[in-house]
Amino acid sequence: MLREPSVAAPIGEQARPTPNLGRLQADLQQFAELGATADSGVSRLAYTPLEREAHQLIARRMRDAGLEVRVDPFGNTIGVRPGRRAGTAAIASGSHLDSVPNGGRFDGTVGVLSALEVMRLLREQGLETEHPLWLVVFAAEEGARFGAPCLGSKAVTGLLTSDDLTRLRDAQGIALGEAMRGVGCQPETLGRERWSARDLAAFLEVHIEQARVLETEGRPIGLVDGIAGNTRVRLIVSGRADHSGATPMHLRRDALAAAAEIILGVEALARDPRRRSTVATVGRIEIEPNNLTTVPGRAVLSVDVRDIDSDRQRVTAREVAQLAYRVGERRAAQVLVELITDSSPAVLPIWLRQHVAEVCTELGIDFRVMNSGAGHDAAVVARVVPAAMVFIPSRDGASHSPQESSSLADIGRGVEVLYHAVLRLDRVLAELEGLG
Amino acid sequence: MLREPSVAAPIGEQARPTPNLGRLQADLQQFAELGATADSGVSRLAYTPLEREAHQLIARRMRDAGLEVRVDPFGNTIGVRPGRRAGTAAIASGSHLDSVPNGGRFDGTVGVLSALEVMRLLREQGLETEHPLWLVVFAAEEGARFGAPCLGSKAVTGLLTSDDLTRLRDAQGIALGEAMRGVGCQPETLGRERWSARDLAAFLEVHIEQARVLETEGRPIGLVDGIAGNTRVRLIVSGRADHSGATPMHLRRDALAAAAEIILGVEALARDPRRRSTVATVGRIEIEPNNLTTVPGRAVLSVDVRDIDSDRQRVTAREVAQLAYRVGERRAAQVLVELITDSSPAVLPIWLRQHVAEVCTELGIDFRVMNSGAGHDAAVVARVVPAAMVFIPSRDGASHSPQESSSLADIGRGVEVLYHAVLRLDRVLAELEGLG
Repeated sequence: MLREPSVAAPIGEQARPTPNLGRLQADLQQFAELGATADSGVSRLAYTPLEREAHQLIARRMRDAGLEVRVDPFGNTIGVRPGRRAGTAAIASGSHLDSVPNGGRFDGTVGVLSALEVMRLLREQGLETEHPLWLVVFAAEEGARFGAPCLGSKAVTGLLTSDDLTRLRDAQGIALGEAMRGVGCQPETLGRERWSARDLAAFLEVHIEQARVLETEGRPIGLVDGIAGNTRVRLIVSGRADHSGATPMHLRRDALAAAAEIILGVEALARDPRRRSTVATVGRIEIEPNNLTTVPGRAVLSVDVRDIDSDRQRVTAREVAQLAYRVGERRAAQVLVELITDSSPAVLPIWLRQHVAEVCTELGIDFRVMNSGAGHDAAVVARVVPAAMVFIPSRDGASHSPQESSSLADIGRGVEVLYHAVLRLDRVLAELEGLG
Repeated sequence: MLREPSVAAPIGEQARPTPNLGRLQADLQQFAELGATADSGVSRLAYTPLEREAHQLIARRMRDAGLEVRVDPFGNTIGVRPGRRAGTAAIASGSHLDSVPNGGRFDGTVGVLSALEVMRLLREQGLETEHPLWLVVFAAEEGARFGAPCLGSKAVTGLLTSDDLTRLRDAQGIALGEAMRGVGCQPETLGRERWSARDLAAFLEVHIEQARVLETEGRPIGLVDGIAGNTRVRLIVSGRADHSGATPMHLRRDALAAAAEIILGVEALARDPRRRSTVATVGRIEIEPNNLTTVPGRAVLSVDVRDIDSDRQRVTAREVAQLAYRVGERRAAQVLVELITDSSPAVLPIWLRQHVAEVCTELGIDFRVMNSGAGHDAAVVARVVPAAMVFIPSRDGASHSPQESSSLADIGRGVEVLYHAVLRLDRVLAELEGLG
């Protein structure tokens, strides 16, 4: 375990290169065009040809920046910048390039392009580091397609099982493993490659906040201490399809009315003031036959429960299931509850966050420490390698929607923090390892 | 206006041919195969090639039964059996052959095949009638595809407007007129052909009950006096799509949660005991982006309000709209209410029902007079021509679902009632017209 470093060269003695906002903007625009939707959103789902196209584009950009690029069997794209000492663990940064359906242009992409900009600045400054640097672009961070998130990072940290490859399916019934093979991945090698602290000394992820805490407080940077976990369940409500004109109200077993009660019950559970940081969302609903003149016979709902507190997260998910059973019993509808995925909250290591905090202080950039309600690859990587997350403000807190936006100035500040954090970490680790 | 007939030859003096249940069953089976679904239901939507195929099949059957067949510009198929007196108004019977998505095999088809069986029995008996007989197969009775029902019967009774041809659209955005032209109809002739009491003396429709009143009471026949009207509205709820993890509960504008409140409110309105015969159904819901990890930003609901009392029907529809606005206001969601269609309830003429009632009595078949919660072509035809409806029991009241079923014995009884009602009406009308 690394101790809190006590000595480091002050930033004032280094060059402070300015991030090239023009080229950041041009790249943001180019990625936004891959899967662009009619209302300026992006649909670039996990393990689709569009996501692969985005990975190919970033691979070209990485090679242009002098990195050596490889794609692992799970579709993660990794660019390596050698360090002076080849055998040492690398310092990594990055994020993801997939999106939710009709999501935003900034989620994930900002973190990848920030890490790329750091590599470009280092090259322009002619700087070498002691440790190798990795730029990691994880595949399939969004859970939108398969229900479970962070599939690329889970694959390299031992958190994805071969059972998941067949069990997790998209809305079309395509299994995860099948989808991976369809875009050229080799999921059958799962378990062979696994990252550890020997490969990586730290992982730093810049990301948009996706909420409005920073904007409200007027702070440009957030440093994440806790990342919420999530428990996701599918509720299948079976009532009886009946004629909407001929069936008296008291004889109905309306699956949509039952679903409506469950939706409001889920909302009420999460709004209960005794549950401070719980959020719960019914984001998907499909009903059958979905016909104007038929009482709905079947409804399938997906519920996403998140919390920073793992006990509260699981208790709430259990209460959602109990609520659904109660509603089903009262309305003579059958209710099935299926677990889609379950991830624990993550607490990121304080020494690494402290390190980034000192960089912010030296740069004169105001910051706050905060939770992340959204899940991130950093939370997964943190199971095996120290990880830190740097948030930049989201305009109006909008995310997972075409309204998602962050200013170039804020993105630039994220790049500066990442640049100096990487360099400082390289020096501090080298000192601790006796290389300096 | 016709008076209640006082004299008619008693049924005891006529032949009572037995309906051929084997051939009825074979035909039912053949129609069930047109648009058969995986779970033994039927999807044969209005103005689709499958509906047209069903019309072509019945046209062949009608020609085999000696009828002269024509298809009108709106896709209604009409088979004519000449009477002794060519100039007189015809006696019509029939129903429809389209279905809701994954509906049943009996709705509509039973009425068409009952009328066909009557034509076959008449031919086998070598019987001629004074009046021409029509077998009418209406197009597009179900409102499932375009929201508005009874499009074929409305087209020939002046209740379909040229505005409807462009305004009514299916879920794919295809306009009614476009869909009609796509299957060879000529909607541009709307208004040229219009039925009146000069063409038709009466319209008799056999139909499955679609509820469980007859089954519960153990009665084989229902004679309909009132047919419920319907008011259908589309509710468009616009909230804000947001990240399901990062957005605190109190900052959400969840369109699905708002929709859930509206769904339960609609149900509560119709369940209010002060509204005796009102039913209200949310049968369709579509949400956007319909993604597990996004708070829903938009929900579109369809509400079907029906009542036998036209005032109560319209008041309830208005209250549904007010309820939706209230929910929207409280949840900072925008609510738009669009009228899809509005039809008044119909009261069928007592003299014609009385006529069918006497036939039942003479046949020794028990019956009851009852309302129809479902709409029917007979209600539309009744605006211009006297109409009567004969219900046969629905097993377990199931309808608009694959579970829909009626026994062959019950169908056979419907045929008998229709056969004798047509013959008796022919004689009674001939007497009144001085032809007898």
